[in-house]
Amino acid sequence: MKNIALLGATGSIGTNTVDVVMAYPELFKIVSLTFHSNSEKGAELIERLKPRYVGVGSEKIKAELTDRFPDIEFGVGAEGLVGAAIYEAVDVVLTAITGSVGLLPTMAAIEVGKDIALANKETLVMAGKWVMEAAEKNNVNILPVDSEHSAIFQCLEGQKVDNLKELVITASGGSFRDLTRDELKTVTLEQALNHPNWSMGKKITIDSSTMMNKGLEVIEAHWLFGTDYDKIKVVLHKESIVHSMIALKDGAYLAQMGPSDMREPIQYALTYPDRLPIKNELAFDLTQIGQLNFEPMDFNRFPMLDLAFTVGKKGGAYPTVYNAANEIAATSFIDGKISYLQIEQFVQRAVDHYQETTEVTLSEVIEIDKQTRTIVERWIKEEGRL
Amino acid sequence: MKNIALLGATGSIGTNTVDVVMAYPELFKIVSLTFHSNSEKGAELIERLKPRYVGVGSEKIKAELTDRFPDIEFGVGAEGLVGAAIYEAVDVVLTAITGSVGLLPTMAAIEVGKDIALANKETLVMAGKWVMEAAEKNNVNILPVDSEHSAIFQCLEGQKVDNLKELVITASGGSFRDLTRDELKTVTLEQALNHPNWSMGKKITIDSSTMMNKGLEVIEAHWLFGTDYDKIKVVLHKESIVHSMIALKDGAYLAQMGPSDMREPIQYALTYPDRLPIKNELAFDLTQIGQLNFEPMDFNRFPMLDLAFTVGKKGGAYPTVYNAANEIAATSFIDGKISYLQIEQFVQRAVDHYQETTEVTLSEVIEIDKQTRTIVERWIKEEGRL
Repeated sequence: MKNIALLGATGSIGTNTVDVVMAYPELFKIVSLTFHSNSEKGAELIERLKPRYVGVGSEKIKAELTDRFPDIEFGVGAEGLVGAAIYEAVDVVLTAITGSVGLLPTMAAIEVGKDIALANKETLVMAGKWVMEAAEKNNVNILPVDSEHSAIFQCLEGQKVDNLKELVITASGGSFRDLTRDELKTVTLEQALNHPNWSMGKKITIDSSTMMNKGLEVIEAHWLFGTDYDKIKVVLHKESIVHSMIALKDGAYLAQMGPSDMREPIQYALTYPDRLPIKNELAFDLTQIGQLNFEPMDFNRFPMLDLAFTVGKKGGAYPTVYNAANEIAATSFIDGKISYLQIEQFVQRAVDHYQETTEVTLSEVIEIDKQTRTIVERWIKEEGRL
Repeated sequence: MKNIALLGATGSIGTNTVDVVMAYPELFKIVSLTFHSNSEKGAELIERLKPRYVGVGSEKIKAELTDRFPDIEFGVGAEGLVGAAIYEAVDVVLTAITGSVGLLPTMAAIEVGKDIALANKETLVMAGKWVMEAAEKNNVNILPVDSEHSAIFQCLEGQKVDNLKELVITASGGSFRDLTRDELKTVTLEQALNHPNWSMGKKITIDSSTMMNKGLEVIEAHWLFGTDYDKIKVVLHKESIVHSMIALKDGAYLAQMGPSDMREPIQYALTYPDRLPIKNELAFDLTQIGQLNFEPMDFNRFPMLDLAFTVGKKGGAYPTVYNAANEIAATSFIDGKISYLQIEQFVQRAVDHYQETTEVTLSEVIEIDKQTRTIVERWIKEEGRL
């Protein structure tokens, strides 16, 4: 029996994780979970999963649910996230929350020796250096849940590190892959949320269309696999069938593929190094799909991807600034406060604005994350829709 | 330094192996080699590689070369093949000869503990059961050199055997993949030898067009990876970029790909589990290739592939009959004695004609191989071109 802490239980990855867990009740148990504000779905999950600890987003939700579930221990906010992550019975923490709030509970879990099934990109984008060091020191596995990183992880199994030439991350191109930059000026939220291949949350769907998501994945891959940025490539692969690849020293490529079903990487992070059938698996037949296409990524078309390599190579808190500015800007676009192309403009401006002169500590990075949000929020408030 | 016996040095795989060895003279040395009749190229290889033992096809060649290279030990025919394979200094035997003559030296090498880099399909087709048993008993590695089997071998690295769902062997479709069965009636040798993706010997190019080659690969894969026939699939993949795949229990696929360059699987069999850059490697860029296509295999269009599964499942000496009949029929087509479609007809007839009632021994299999050749030769002589 593997005891799981599920951070972000009501979101897209959270829901898929619950499916995986319920398919093998004899193997998996969710002993703690967290959700932010969807208390209806949260209460339903508590009924179904019977966790022992639940982290919620507000005192109000805690009060409501304490009445209803008096035997369960509740925590609120950051304390609730950490409480769920370090809950004693937990073997592995699945970090399905989005945003920089994922960092603290992940670090806390690593410190007490819990394995991490990592779906929260920001953890490595902000604190890759410290997280990977802590994981090594505490003999903790960091198991990727993102389909791209899981694909690379699967391809790398059994390969000597020294055999690797480069990582090749595939990108679907997102909702606007067929539009020119000029056509992007007038796109709407509704259009942006229409992802061609994956059904995901709003923020990540926007990030897919700006290629911010791919940029974060590049930085995540750098830390996860210890790979230099000049050995990480991104190719446009519209079908999202090949989830990513590795190139080896002798010119051979290994690619992992399958249907667009997040249950596979989630389940693999939980069963690794074993595999189990996916219950009610999606049909997948390459001869039915027929054709796989690969195109070079256009860095002019997708400047946020280019910027990921820039901030990644600069290191320090630059990736944090890049991510924090985007969290505010993408959310502001979703809230109708700015236009689509302003997302990129505010991210670029925040990165240009930030100057790092001395080596930063983890607590400074967390502070810079907050400052960046404040600055970008102020810019957006002052300047509104350009 | 890895000491290599190269059986079939003047053929296509042999030539590629010499390239690999010469690219890393500090790592590889060919200490023994064999060739059948191309004494000009053979002599040139002896000059370049300075082997200590050479097996040749005839006493005449031995006499000529003994005069020219008095310090080298020569052997003739089957004795020469076995002599090269079990030569004391040899670490690994690369079996680049085609046909059933590859079996005896391979078995002899396994018995004395030499690793096998296997490019001779007939070894496993005829004697898979005995070869794999002997390899296990003598703690010998059987390392595949065929691009398809090397691809599967590479994908399987680091995977638990229990994770495997099926093997997916890719097939280019050969020279006549776009012709109907009706159009095959009048095809010529010249057309048959025009393979779309790979430059190979005549016999194997014909075998690619009839799908006999793929059929032999299916049987080879069955023995090499211990996989049931109903877990071996073949898909048509015209580009020959994906060299083969594995499907895992959880629905994930792992595929190995790269340029159509036999040096990669050859070198990997020699460096395994390490990898080295291929000297002067072929350019390979998926975004330049652009598109990969996959189609179902049509067993009616390619009856020899269907027959491979039939003879494979029957077991015993059935695969031997299938292979021996084809060796005679394909060679007869190359020699202008029969028409293209008669290759299939003679193979089918030989399989139908053969009846196995009791379990066969390895020496009986070798005898049945000879008998099948005699019978099919007689049929062809008596009936000529239909």
